[in-house]
Amino acid sequence: MMDRAIVSSALEAVRETSPLVSCITNSVVTNFTANVLLAIGAAPAMVDIVGEAGPFASIASGLLINLGTPTPEQREAAREAASAAVAADVPWVLDPVAVGALVHRTDLARELVTMGPTVVRGNASEIIALAGEGAGGRGVDASDEVESAFEAAQLIARNYGSVVAISGATDAIVSADQIIRVGGGAEMLTRVTGGGCALGAFLAAFVGAAKTRAVTPLEAVAAGHAVYSAAGEIAQEKASGPGTFQMHFLDSLYLVSTDDLDRIPLS
Amino acid sequence: MMDRAIVSSALEAVRETSPLVSCITNSVVTNFTANVLLAIGAAPAMVDIVGEAGPFASIASGLLINLGTPTPEQREAAREAASAAVAADVPWVLDPVAVGALVHRTDLARELVTMGPTVVRGNASEIIALAGEGAGGRGVDASDEVESAFEAAQLIARNYGSVVAISGATDAIVSADQIIRVGGGAEMLTRVTGGGCALGAFLAAFVGAAKTRAVTPLEAVAAGHAVYSAAGEIAQEKASGPGTFQMHFLDSLYLVSTDDLDRIPLS
Amino acid sequence: MMDRAIVSSALEAVRETSPLVSCITNSVVTNFTANVLLAIGAAPAMVDIVGEAGPFASIASGLLINLGTPTPEQREAAREAASAAVAADVPWVLDPVAVGALVHRTDLARELVTMGPTVVRGNASEIIALAGEGAGGRGVDASDEVESAFEAAQLIARNYGSVVAISGATDAIVSADQIIRVGGGAEMLTRVTGGGCALGAFLAAFVGAAKTRAVTPLEAVAAGHAVYSAAGEIAQEKASGPGTFQMHFLDSLYLVSTDDLDRIPLS
Repeated sequence: MMDRAIVSSALEAVRETSPLVSCITNSVVTNFTANVLLAIGAAPAMVDIVGEAGPFASIASGLLINLGTPTPEQREAAREAASAAVAADVPWVLDPVAVGALVHRTDLARELVTMGPTVVRGNASEIIALAGEGAGGRGVDASDEVESAFEAAQLIARNYGSVVAISGATDAIVSADQIIRVGGGAEMLTRVTGGGCALGAFLAAFVGAAKTRAVTPLEAVAAGHAVYSAAGEIAQEKASGPGTFQMHFLDSLYLVSTDDLDRIPLS
Repeated sequence: MMDRAIVSSALEAVRETSPLVSCITNSVVTNFTANVLLAIGAAPAMVDIVGEAGPFASIASGLLINLGTPTPEQREAAREAASAAVAADVPWVLDPVAVGALVHRTDLARELVTMGPTVVRGNASEIIALAGEGAGGRGVDASDEVESAFEAAQLIARNYGSVVAISGATDAIVSADQIIRVGGGAEMLTRVTGGGCALGAFLAAFVGAAKTRAVTPLEAVAAGHAVYSAAGEIAQEKASGPGTFQMHFLDSLYLVSTDDLDRIPLS
Repeated sequence: MMDRAIVSSALEAVRETSPLVSCITNSVVTNFTANVLLAIGAAPAMVDIVGEAGPFASIASGLLINLGTPTPEQREAAREAASAAVAADVPWVLDPVAVGALVHRTDLARELVTMGPTVVRGNASEIIALAGEGAGGRGVDASDEVESAFEAAQLIARNYGSVVAISGATDAIVSADQIIRVGGGAEMLTRVTGGGCALGAFLAAFVGAAKTRAVTPLEAVAAGHAVYSAAGEIAQEKASGPGTFQMHFLDSLYLVSTDDLDRIPLS
């Protein structure tokens, strides 16, 4: 059972420290990702060039590596950034988008995961595929249930020390010996591109800021999911479709209060 | 004269089958394109990496190749994806953005068109330039009238078996022996970037989903234009500028009903 | 003291001539940048491919080179485009995003500035770093005060003939022998990604359109800042967060009148 005071503390840490999050992410979601980070009070930067990605990652508060559209330049930059983050003890998030069937991202994800990302985030299909037990989903869909990925998630957590966040109807945050479930959220998030991808950057902000508090990566990831879900719920109540939802979601991230967090089931 | 029941059937097919659309498109419109596809009920994926673009195109329901910002990697990936789509009988849309004066895209567009895209979509200038009869427009403007491109469109349709969709005040959908005109639409769409580019992906969704029904590619393309125009009209009535328009347009695609389609002139 | 009639004239020039602005910019802000240009009445095009960037820049009304995510292909294309713009007397804007610590963009920015950009635009940290007197900011933040960059700006203005626009609480537009201050604006712009980057493209439109009037580049840049600030203020009054702000900002650019410009302090 997770203490709700920790969720509030993690959110305050982001807003007070404005963590600088370096993002290597896919070309579809760069803009939305940066806006999500700005809305919650973090400082986004996209540095995905070979020769710059490493130095920048080492001075950031957190790093996201998302493999949605991994060009050769980005693949090389991702390796450079991950190494730099590990060396500088900067928390980093790996989002293995659509791994399984597609060759470059699958090879790279399996290489990067051995470097011990602080967080691995994906849907059940992706987590299963990354662990090597399944064939992945079709694109970015979640065609597996969250529960079906628990074994794969724990395998990754034990082998590489990562917190594994599985997105689904109820999200599950998995460490080697614990599982936290975060409910709530908005179905409409699945009608806006980048909902999951931006969450990866969001988690990098929370884990980065948590270093300034007595909040563990597991708790920070659960807190990030809870805040994201709360903002999603508020936005969905106001939205009449995916256009208005996206707008209200950014406003809700900006305005979300610790009271709003009480609506999110957390166990 | 096109039967309106076919438009409704084509729309239902998209919503019921949620076609997976692989997009190789320009860096300006990736996000909007994905959101347009999600709003109508399709599943977008942007796979534009050499070595991944082909395998993914072959399992998709439809493919878009848009030449707006064709990096060397994308040019190679486009060839790979087009070949795979042809081999796997996956419908594909070619959008020859700004062909004519600019060398790489013009060469590539003329190469790809010979592979027989299911649909070629562009403004009159682009269709004329692709057919080799003109010098293209300035960027993505439509400086020629739709009618002026009929001859070029029919040439492409006859030589390569493509349906050619010409965007303008009244859109024209041209096959070797037929022309369907689709009216309506929103002038405000020209104040939002990616209106035409996202339409290309939208058409890939409609043509892909149409394979599950007794709807021809010509009909599916006309239906896609009609739905897009109807959503544009509804959004324009609610908008006070391009910012509110973009938001309402995505909502309208999500909400558009077969009744709304009656407002669109179709002949 | 700048004449407000010149601001109105510069805005009218953009709306009446619809300047074609070629943008080589970062992957985070392409979409927003294009939408900002469309909202004010300019015509955006992103041509950042080697072999196309030069020819296109030479026929454009204005060119933006923004170094936010400078891939090798973009770096080469930027050199090609700058040379073509200089040769064809096309006004161009250099935005040296995050120069200072990061190697590729810093080297390239220092090379490009010697080619004499019509406008250099950045925050104080970036202007100082470009002039070689400081170490740059952390990412895209403005950690220096505008005034602290006056000396660096005047150095650039004198050496290369550029107008230097420094963004901050009060913007300063600096030439070799003049400083214009533009106040107003919206704090919320710092919560939306690409506010500064899109301003660079916006200035390219203003300077390009100014060639058709008796408006100098210095005046056009000040006018562009004033229009941008006015639209920002109007949007902020209507917004409840960064999502609604972004939408209202695009609407405001579309709707902004010369009367609205009176609210912006200009000296």
